[in-house]
Amino acid sequence: MKIADKLKSFIEDFPDFPQKGIIFRDISPLLENQDVFATTMNALCDKVKDKKFNKIIGIDARGFIFASAMAYKLKKSFVICRKPGKLPGKLITQNYNYEYSSTAISIQQDKLKKEDKILIVDDVLASGNTALAAYKIAQRKAKVVGLLFLIELSNLSGRKYLLQETGLKDSQILSIAQY
Amino acid sequence: MKIADKLKSFIEDFPDFPQKGIIFRDISPLLENQDVFATTMNALCDKVKDKKFNKIIGIDARGFIFASAMAYKLKKSFVICRKPGKLPGKLITQNYNYEYSSTAISIQQDKLKKEDKILIVDDVLASGNTALAAYKIAQRKAKVVGLLFLIELSNLSGRKYLLQETGLKDSQILSIAQY
Repeated sequence: MKIADKLKSFIEDFPDFPQKGIIFRDISPLLENQDVFATTMNALCDKVKDKKFNKIIGIDARGFIFASAMAYKLKKSFVICRKPGKLPGKLITQNYNYEYSSTAISIQQDKLKKEDKILIVDDVLASGNTALAAYKIAQRKAKVVGLLFLIELSNLSGRKYLLQETGLKDSQILSIAQY
Repeated sequence: MKIADKLKSFIEDFPDFPQKGIIFRDISPLLENQDVFATTMNALCDKVKDKKFNKIIGIDARGFIFASAMAYKLKKSFVICRKPGKLPGKLITQNYNYEYSSTAISIQQDKLKKEDKILIVDDVLASGNTALAAYKIAQRKAKVVGLLFLIELSNLSGRKYLLQETGLKDSQILSIAQY
């Protein structure tokens, strides 16, 4: 079985969650099984083995799960990108639209250096709005070399949107399991 | 230098955040430095090396950072404990008081088995209210063998409260850096 298919068999579908018309792809069964979690981590790390980066940005909150373990495994610097009111100090903040309303995410200004080469990690690529906001913040001070997702919801065209809105190439937007 | 002191030198204090009178202990510098993050992970894993557990519960959102990397490193099952509206399916939910208001956390019912021996992981032990809520949920179906925190804010007496409200012994409530 291909890795993507194996991992998908540990991702549970919940139709109409959190709202009608959305299928929630739940990664909880994948986290619960330590062998499958290890396979997932290996697949994520393998996907970026040719990329040169020194820092991983993880997106609040499920992005932390994979970004943190990757940073630990690959010995990279780890920076968190959080929702409003969660980070202290001087922040760079980006507003964006999310599920019919407006929200924002922030990164601490001093955690981004001009020489940083950054990989942004989140669990799901849906519309691409959240990843784009993180990209815009990081790119303001450093260089983003790639975006990595465990799951890509292809019907929402997040990849197309990110390619259009960033300077990234197709090979810099990576995912393991596509729907 | 003791490990706790070394880690503390990478935890930044922000007085009056998120509100007046609170000192926010920010772990971001510790995450940013890969060597210090590795030291932290080793200290956390070392702290529970004599405990027998098969599952780690990480608490939303910063708890995910350490719980996830620990589960990966120690090859344990990983289960997430989340805020309202975030988890699909049948949940066990516990209400509790948090910073002068009421909130709740949940775990998916089918992620807890009778035979599970559980370690609960969060970044900070403050009042103990959040950890107690997670403990109550897990203990309803399985057995909690320990609570592990990176930081313990001793002046808030969370340890005393948890000892009083759970059946745990002092040696089952663990922390690396005390303030």
